[in-house]
Amino acid sequence: MNNEVAVAIVGVSGYSGMELARIVGRHPHLRLAAAVSDKWAGRALGDSLPLGGAAAAVRCTPQAEAAATFTSVDLVFLCTPAEVSIALAAAALDAGRRVVDLSGGFRLPAAQYPRWYGFTHPRPDLLERAVYSMPEATDNRTQVAGAALVSNPGCYATASVLSLLPLLRAGVIEEGGLVIDAKSGTTGAGRKASEEMSFSEVEGDFRAYRILKHQHTPEIERVLGMAGVGGGRGPGPVTFTAHLLPTRRGILATSYGRLRPGKTGADAAAAVRAFVGGSAFLRAAAPEAVRLHPVVGTNRALIGADADPERGVAIGFCAIDNLVKGAAGQAAQNANLMFGLDEGAGLDGLGGCMP
Amino acid sequence: MNNEVAVAIVGVSGYSGMELARIVGRHPHLRLAAAVSDKWAGRALGDSLPLGGAAAAVRCTPQAEAAATFTSVDLVFLCTPAEVSIALAAAALDAGRRVVDLSGGFRLPAAQYPRWYGFTHPRPDLLERAVYSMPEATDNRTQVAGAALVSNPGCYATASVLSLLPLLRAGVIEEGGLVIDAKSGTTGAGRKASEEMSFSEVEGDFRAYRILKHQHTPEIERVLGMAGVGGGRGPGPVTFTAHLLPTRRGILATSYGRLRPGKTGADAAAAVRAFVGGSAFLRAAAPEAVRLHPVVGTNRALIGADADPERGVAIGFCAIDNLVKGAAGQAAQNANLMFGLDEGAGLDGLGGCMP
Amino acid sequence: MNNEVAVAIVGVSGYSGMELARIVGRHPHLRLAAAVSDKWAGRALGDSLPLGGAAAAVRCTPQAEAAATFTSVDLVFLCTPAEVSIALAAAALDAGRRVVDLSGGFRLPAAQYPRWYGFTHPRPDLLERAVYSMPEATDNRTQVAGAALVSNPGCYATASVLSLLPLLRAGVIEEGGLVIDAKSGTTGAGRKASEEMSFSEVEGDFRAYRILKHQHTPEIERVLGMAGVGGGRGPGPVTFTAHLLPTRRGILATSYGRLRPGKTGADAAAAVRAFVGGSAFLRAAAPEAVRLHPVVGTNRALIGADADPERGVAIGFCAIDNLVKGAAGQAAQNANLMFGLDEGAGLDGLGGCMP
Amino acid sequence: MNNEVAVAIVGVSGYSGMELARIVGRHPHLRLAAAVSDKWAGRALGDSLPLGGAAAAVRCTPQAEAAATFTSVDLVFLCTPAEVSIALAAAALDAGRRVVDLSGGFRLPAAQYPRWYGFTHPRPDLLERAVYSMPEATDNRTQVAGAALVSNPGCYATASVLSLLPLLRAGVIEEGGLVIDAKSGTTGAGRKASEEMSFSEVEGDFRAYRILKHQHTPEIERVLGMAGVGGGRGPGPVTFTAHLLPTRRGILATSYGRLRPGKTGADAAAAVRAFVGGSAFLRAAAPEAVRLHPVVGTNRALIGADADPERGVAIGFCAIDNLVKGAAGQAAQNANLMFGLDEGAGLDGLGGCMP
Repeated sequence: MNNEVAVAIVGVSGYSGMELARIVGRHPHLRLAAAVSDKWAGRALGDSLPLGGAAAAVRCTPQAEAAATFTSVDLVFLCTPAEVSIALAAAALDAGRRVVDLSGGFRLPAAQYPRWYGFTHPRPDLLERAVYSMPEATDNRTQVAGAALVSNPGCYATASVLSLLPLLRAGVIEEGGLVIDAKSGTTGAGRKASEEMSFSEVEGDFRAYRILKHQHTPEIERVLGMAGVGGGRGPGPVTFTAHLLPTRRGILATSYGRLRPGKTGADAAAAVRAFVGGSAFLRAAAPEAVRLHPVVGTNRALIGADADPERGVAIGFCAIDNLVKGAAGQAAQNANLMFGLDEGAGLDGLGGCMP
Repeated sequence: MNNEVAVAIVGVSGYSGMELARIVGRHPHLRLAAAVSDKWAGRALGDSLPLGGAAAAVRCTPQAEAAATFTSVDLVFLCTPAEVSIALAAAALDAGRRVVDLSGGFRLPAAQYPRWYGFTHPRPDLLERAVYSMPEATDNRTQVAGAALVSNPGCYATASVLSLLPLLRAGVIEEGGLVIDAKSGTTGAGRKASEEMSFSEVEGDFRAYRILKHQHTPEIERVLGMAGVGGGRGPGPVTFTAHLLPTRRGILATSYGRLRPGKTGADAAAAVRAFVGGSAFLRAAAPEAVRLHPVVGTNRALIGADADPERGVAIGFCAIDNLVKGAAGQAAQNANLMFGLDEGAGLDGLGGCMP
Repeated sequence: MNNEVAVAIVGVSGYSGMELARIVGRHPHLRLAAAVSDKWAGRALGDSLPLGGAAAAVRCTPQAEAAATFTSVDLVFLCTPAEVSIALAAAALDAGRRVVDLSGGFRLPAAQYPRWYGFTHPRPDLLERAVYSMPEATDNRTQVAGAALVSNPGCYATASVLSLLPLLRAGVIEEGGLVIDAKSGTTGAGRKASEEMSFSEVEGDFRAYRILKHQHTPEIERVLGMAGVGGGRGPGPVTFTAHLLPTRRGILATSYGRLRPGKTGADAAAAVRAFVGGSAFLRAAAPEAVRLHPVVGTNRALIGADADPERGVAIGFCAIDNLVKGAAGQAAQNANLMFGLDEGAGLDGLGGCMP
Repeated sequence: MNNEVAVAIVGVSGYSGMELARIVGRHPHLRLAAAVSDKWAGRALGDSLPLGGAAAAVRCTPQAEAAATFTSVDLVFLCTPAEVSIALAAAALDAGRRVVDLSGGFRLPAAQYPRWYGFTHPRPDLLERAVYSMPEATDNRTQVAGAALVSNPGCYATASVLSLLPLLRAGVIEEGGLVIDAKSGTTGAGRKASEEMSFSEVEGDFRAYRILKHQHTPEIERVLGMAGVGGGRGPGPVTFTAHLLPTRRGILATSYGRLRPGKTGADAAAAVRAFVGGSAFLRAAAPEAVRLHPVVGTNRALIGADADPERGVAIGFCAIDNLVKGAAGQAAQNANLMFGLDEGAGLDGLGGCMP
C-alpha cells in the first residue's frame, strides 16, 4: 500500500489517455482511481477499453467536475489540450496534488508561446515550477523526483532528440545545420472528426504539414541544450519537418548532421551503442532495422546511425511509438521517477502487437 | 453539337461528383458545361482535380445558384443527398432539362421511404416519372432513352444484384432465402468530417453497419423483380449486410442462395458465363479471381459463382468500383443511353490504377 | 516454483509463435525454457522480439534439434505446419512431455484428412489421444486437465463457432442451413514469401479464397457437435467462406441462420448475453460494435446478434484476434487448464494496441 | 499509319509494364503490337489487365522469344532488370529498332556501375549511344528525337531532381550540401515474392533502406549537372535516403538546401512557379498540398517549396506517381519525343483514381 500511487487520468477517451489507462491498468504500483472524459461520462472504463481488474470498474467523470477527482489521488495525468492542461494543472497543484502534463502547456519558455502555440501563456509562474523530463536526454532524475509538476515531452521531440543526441554527444557531427525529417502515424493528430484525417483522404496518401511552423521545433532545440549540446545553449536553430504517414502508430525520425572531419560510419554506429548503454528503453540497431513494427505498443526507442565521409554527412534514425514512448509510456516512466519507483515499473512486456 | 451533350454536375466536390468529372472530362460526347459545389465555389475545377482540357477551366457555382446553371446544359447529374436531389431534380425538369440522379431519391416506391430513408417522399409524382436503370439487369434501354429523369442505382444494389441474377436467371438457386454479405471501401460513406470514419478508427478495423436496416435492401428486392425474378414480383425479402472495409474503393458482394436439386458448381459457373455474354462491362471470372484490384477505376463488374450440392448452396460473387460502376460510371452509361450514344462511350480505358 | 511450468515453443519465428512468446514472456506461471526456429537459430529471442525478462535471453535451437529441447520442459507448444506437428507431437509424447498443438494436425477424425488437408493422417493413434479444446464451446475442462496432447482450435473455427453457438443453444435458429461469411487479416496466412500476399497485391484489395474447400469447415461442424448442437451430432453441413482483409490482424465472422418461428432480435441479443455469462474472455456487444480494434492483441471474443422475423433470419457476429484468441492466446488458456492454473492466468491486459 | 507507332513492351507483367500497357492501350498514336512476359506467355493481355480495344487481344510472348517480336515494331519498351535490358537493347538496336529502356541499364557512366549497380557494364559502347531524358530537367528534346536508345529516368531520381532544380536554377539555395529525404510506395520494389515485402510486414511499418547506397544517388547528381547545375558539373555529392511507405503508389521527395543570403520563402515559391511555367506535366502547389493522391495514376509532378532565413534552409517538395511520371508515363513521354508526336499525347486524363 505504501508503494501504491493513486492516479487520475484526465482526457481518458483520447488516444494518449486510452493508452495511459492501459499502462496504469497493469502497473504494479499505480492504481487508477479516477478517469475524466465528457465522452464517456458516467460509464465504466471497461465498457470502452479492453481493461482487466479494478481499472475496468472506474466510472468516468465529466471534465467540468475534474477537479473533484483530484482530492482522492496522489497524481494527476493531464491528457488534454495545452490551454486546458494549464488550467487543470493549476487546480491540481492548488489541491496539493502532483501532476504529469502530456500537453505542450509547459514545454517552452513563456516568450515562445505566442509564436509556436498561438497563445500567451497565462501562468508563467507555473512554467517556472515545471520540470521538463525526457529521462534519457535530460538526465534530471533527482529534480523530477522532487517535482510537483512534470512536463512530458512531445512525441516528435522525443524521436528527434534521440536520433541526434548520440551523434552530438560523441562529436560525430557538428552542432549547426541539423535537419530532422520526421514521419508520424495518424494518432498523433488526436481523436476527432476531421475531413482531412478521414480514411478516404489519408489512406494511400503522404504529405508534410505545419512546414517550418511545427511547435516541436523549439522544444527540440531546448532539449538538446538541456542535454548539454552547445555547452547547454543548444545547437541553434534546427530544421524540422513533420509528415503524415498512412498508418496509425509510430514515428520515424531521419536526421541529418554535418560529419566532423575524420569521422566515419563506424563512429556513428559506435556513438549510438555508447549512448544506448544499459538504458532500459533504448536499443541500438542497424539503421535499416530502425522501423515501426518492433516499437509499436512498447516504451522503447530503436536508434541507429550511419555516415558518409565523401558526402560529409551522418544520418541518425529513431523509431518510437508516438502514443507510448512519445506520450503515455514516457508519462508513466516520469511518474515512476516522481514516486521513487523503479523507472521501468509497469513498462515491460507492453507491446508485441507485432506485426 | 449534334453529338455533343452539355452537362452540369451538382455536388462535384463529393467522391461521386469528382469521379463523374473525371469521366465527363475525357468523354468524347459529353462536355462539362457547369459544376456546382459550395466547397469549391468560384474556383476552377482544374485547381482541385487532375483534369485536362476544357473541363479544367470550368468554375464552380455555389449550390444555392445551382438552378441557374441548368439553363446552359442538356443534362444535369445530381450527386447530392436524396432530399436535395429531389428538390433539384424538380427544378431541372421544370427548366426542361433531363436528369440523372445518383442519390436514393428516386429508387423506391413512395411507401417505402419513411422506413428505409427516414422521410416521406415529397414528390411522388416525380417518382412515377423516374426510370430506374441498372442496364445489365433491368434491360429497359428504350425506356431510358425516352426518360427525362433517370434514377441511378445504389452501389451495394449494383454489386448485389449482379452477384445473384445469373444464378436466379438460370434457375441454379431458389428465389427465397437469399443472403447477401457485402463489403465496401470507405468512399461509399461520402466525403465528410466524422470521428468514426477517421483513419485512426478505420485502419486495421472491420465491422458491419446498418444491420438489417440498410436502404439498399428493398432496392435489391425491387431490381431483382424488374429483372424478372419471381415472375416480376421479385424474390421476396432478401437478407443484406453491409460491412466497412479498410480500403478506399470497391465493393465485394458474397451472396448465398439455396441450390436447386441436381444443380452443381459447373451449372453456377455456366450461369455466370451465359449472363455475362457479350456485355461491355461484365466479366466472368473464377470466384477467387473476383477481387477489387482489377475493377478499381473501371466501369466493370467481375462476376463468379460456385456451388456445393452436399451443402445445398450456391455462392455468387461480384466486385465493382463503388464510385464507378456503383455510381459515376453507371451514371455516364445511363447518360449514353438517354442521348442515343454508344453505351460504352467514354467508359473504356478508365482504370488500370492496379495495383 | 511448484507452480512454474517450463515450456518450449517450436516455430517461434512464425506469427503464432511470436505471439505465444509474448504471452509466455509475461505469464506468471509459464516460463519460456526453449525456443525452436531455423530462422533465428543461435540468436537470443530478445534480438528479434521486444521481450523483457528471462525470455529475452533464451537462445533459439534449430528445428532439427527440436526434440533435444523437450527434455528440459514440461510442455511443448507446436506452432508448426500440420505434418511437422504430428511428427514432433509424437516425439514429445514419447519423451513424456505434454503438448499443445496449434496446427490442424489433430483437429479432425482421420477419415477427413485426405479431403480437407490433402494427406493421410500418419498417426491415427495419436488423434485418438488428442483432446480438442475450445473451452467456451467444448466445455471439457476436466478432460483437458488430464490430457497429454491438446489440439488447439483453428482461428476461423473459433470465431465461427462463437458467432453461432449462442443462437443455437438458445434455440433462436434452426440447426440446418448455417452460412458463415468470415474475413481475416493477413497474418492468418503465416509468415512467408509470396507474391500474392505482397503488400502491393493485398493493400486496397479484398477477395474470397479456398471457396467451399476451407479445412476449417468440417472443424466447425465437429465443434458445434461437441458443444451439443444436434444432440451432439452437430448441425450437419455448414457453408463457410473465408476472405482476405487488407489488415494484419483480426477475424470477423458474420453468420446467418434460419430464425425459428416466434423468435426476434431481442431473443438473439438475449441468447448472446446468456451465453457470454461470466466468461473471462467473451463479451456481449451490440452487433455494430463487434469490430476488430477492441480485440486486437487480446484473448477476447466480442459477440453480438440480431434477427429479422420478416426475413426469417438471425445474424451472429464474432470478432477475435486471429493470433491470440484464434491461436496463441487460446493455446495459453489451454495450457492453464492442463496445469491446473487459473484459466485466465497471463491473459489479462494483453492488448490495448487500440487503435 | 504515318502517325502510328507499333510498340513492344518487354516485361509487361511487372508493375511498370502493366502501367505502360494501360497507357499505350489508350494512346492515340502508339499501338501495342507485342507484349513479352514469361508469366503470361500465351495468354491475351485482356485476360490479365482491364484493357479495352485491340491491346486486349495481344498475346504474350515468352521472354526467350522476345527478339522475334522486335521485327514487327518500331519501338521497344524494356521493363526488365538492368542486365536483361542491356542484352535486349543490343538485340533491338541490332534489328534496327528504337528503344526506351526503363531500367538502370543506361543511366550512369560505365565507371559507376560496379559501385552502384554491382556489375561491370558489358556494353559501354551502347552507354555512349544512350540518351538520358528527363524532359523537364535535361531539356534535350532534339537529341531525344534523334536517338535510337533512350534511357528513362529512375523514379526517385525524377522526384528528387524536380524537388531541387527550381531552387537551384533560381539561385535560392547553394549547390553544395543537398539532402533528399524520399519516400516511396511499395510498387517501386517490383512484383515478386518476398517475405519482407509481404502485407503483414509492411502494413503499419515504415523504414529507410539502402541507406547511403541507393543507385539513384549518382543519377541525381548527374542529372542535376545535365540540367546546368554547377555550370554543368553538377552539385557535387548529394545525400539521398529512400524510405518504404505503407502504400502502393507514389513518391514524395522532401529536399533540403542551404538558403543563399537574402533569400526568403517567397523566393522559393516564386522559383517553383517560374520553373513550372507552362509545362504540361508540372504543377506548382503550396508545400502542404504536395501530396500523393492528386498525382496517383497521372504523369504529373506536384512541386512546392518554402524557406526559413532564420534557419538558413529551403525545402523543396515533389510528389509523383512512381509508376507513371516515375516510369511508364515518362517513358511514353519520351516515346512521343522520339517519334515527333505531341509530348503529352496519350498522357492526359490518365488518373483521377482519387482518392
